[in-house]
Amino acid sequence: MRKPVIGVMGGAVADAATVETAHELGRLIAERGWVLLNGGRDCGVMAASARGASEAGGLVVGILPDTTAGKASPDLDVAIMTGMGDGRNLINVMSSDVVVACKGSLGTMSEVVLALKHGKRVILLGLEVGREYASFRASGQLTTAADPPDAVEQAAAALDAVA
Amino acid sequence: MRKPVIGVMGGAVADAATVETAHELGRLIAERGWVLLNGGRDCGVMAASARGASEAGGLVVGILPDTTAGKASPDLDVAIMTGMGDGRNLINVMSSDVVVACKGSLGTMSEVVLALKHGKRVILLGLEVGREYASFRASGQLTTAADPPDAVEQAAAALDAVA
Amino acid sequence: MRKPVIGVMGGAVADAATVETAHELGRLIAERGWVLLNGGRDCGVMAASARGASEAGGLVVGILPDTTAGKASPDLDVAIMTGMGDGRNLINVMSSDVVVACKGSLGTMSEVVLALKHGKRVILLGLEVGREYASFRASGQLTTAADPPDAVEQAAAALDAVA
Amino acid sequence: MRKPVIGVMGGAVADAATVETAHELGRLIAERGWVLLNGGRDCGVMAASARGASEAGGLVVGILPDTTAGKASPDLDVAIMTGMGDGRNLINVMSSDVVVACKGSLGTMSEVVLALKHGKRVILLGLEVGREYASFRASGQLTTAADPPDAVEQAAAALDAVA
Repeated sequence: MRKPVIGVMGGAVADAATVETAHELGRLIAERGWVLLNGGRDCGVMAASARGASEAGGLVVGILPDTTAGKASPDLDVAIMTGMGDGRNLINVMSSDVVVACKGSLGTMSEVVLALKHGKRVILLGLEVGREYASFRASGQLTTAADPPDAVEQAAAALDAVA
Repeated sequence: MRKPVIGVMGGAVADAATVETAHELGRLIAERGWVLLNGGRDCGVMAASARGASEAGGLVVGILPDTTAGKASPDLDVAIMTGMGDGRNLINVMSSDVVVACKGSLGTMSEVVLALKHGKRVILLGLEVGREYASFRASGQLTTAADPPDAVEQAAAALDAVA
Repeated sequence: MRKPVIGVMGGAVADAATVETAHELGRLIAERGWVLLNGGRDCGVMAASARGASEAGGLVVGILPDTTAGKASPDLDVAIMTGMGDGRNLINVMSSDVVVACKGSLGTMSEVVLALKHGKRVILLGLEVGREYASFRASGQLTTAADPPDAVEQAAAALDAVA
Repeated sequence: MRKPVIGVMGGAVADAATVETAHELGRLIAERGWVLLNGGRDCGVMAASARGASEAGGLVVGILPDTTAGKASPDLDVAIMTGMGDGRNLINVMSSDVVVACKGSLGTMSEVVLALKHGKRVILLGLEVGREYASFRASGQLTTAADPPDAVEQAAAALDAVA
């Protein structure tokens, strides 16, 4: 069986607290034995979560918007070049079993929305999406985590529910 | 010079009032001499807006999620087959000069978010997106229209501002 | 009913004879009342065929590899921004009823191959593809035209066969 | 540093000899410590090469044309869902450091052509592409391997040349 894949989304530009959160999240994902998948670039939440997972010995997959690996994080084990720009956001979420969305902007929001559309369990970790998504909260598809350990606990429960 | 392209987004499933709104919007876009672009399928806001524009003699372009035209609206002049599913949502908004978002669900929301990310002027017509987008309202990139004539007036002003 | 769409493929860099061929082909396509679809950029076979069709009053659709219209031919009526680079080659051929391939290089070859894979009738006009494609010649899916009028005659026959 | 990625292309339908070749190729790639990347489905060259690499303890990445993993080979470590059909062929080759093309049909040919266009070293292993590609043979970008060990030797040399 393939290992679970946790997609970590979040801003390409991130403040220090968000970087720290993403780094811890990456580490915890790796410690669970899960694969971390993100957008692959060497900045923001992408770089920090990849580094956290890599330092803990986890497998890290980056789905890059680019045609070459020039802007890839050095912590990726596998770099997928899509050449599609934001078109790769859909690939990110379809390829994840659970999506954790850190603080971010419009790109991150597009990933949350597309993840919900494709039936993925989405855990918010520092991102607010508004009351327009109340029905997804009510069904349990969308939740908010207090911190990285909580996000990983919720992800574990979601993976158990699917398995 | 190419004619302006107005992207009309909205639900694949639509209630009667939304269908009527989309139909009127399509007609008004065509009467302005603009091209109407949408997701191309023969249902919901796509079908209704295409029909409205076609009946008024306008040019209608559909960007389909499919590999063939089997599910295309009969009112398209040009059917673009992307074979990308929701991946075509990004193409929809990048190919539009102004985006009008009718009532819809997650697919429509993804188009609003991606349109904002790509700097497009977005006009909401029956869709609520939440206060998370207040900064885009403040800058004038995102507005709400009261009805189809208002949406078309706002689109005209947006096109003037760009030209 | 939608008008037939003829996809015109060929090099982004083209010699004078190929430019002349593409220009005449574009004109003849427009004179038949068909839509011309190509890769949309302002160079080579794309620019020449678009200009030929536009001068003859035809409708011209360009499927661009880019995220914006900055490199689009001025003769497009509709510019579709895919942001996918060569990924748009598949969209080109899936969106065409018949594909005419002028002289070109690897991009053009990829379009011929993908067009054959998707069951499209392919007409070569100045391009050689090798004996590896003999079975497609034998079935009549792949033919060579002597000049633009011959290509358009063959396209007409192919459209009749489908209709 | 990321491990080298070898893209293995080839038919979704494959005869027994081709399956055996692909299986051996997968094994040899894994034994070198390289990542094997292919189209991910549970058939033909994809399934056989994935199985060969997996049995030898290698890392296997599949880039699927689908939106879900339902048709994925059981031997993938990472399944990337593109939802793009043949559009994923470009992602396959852009994400590979070296491409080995086994016997296949039009899909495989499209990958060879796109790989050459993106400057990738391509090794043919049971596929003929025609004299139209003589210039790529002359430059050494395109070669033919006699058997899987030869293909892997050539890949090693290509990786050395890049590094």
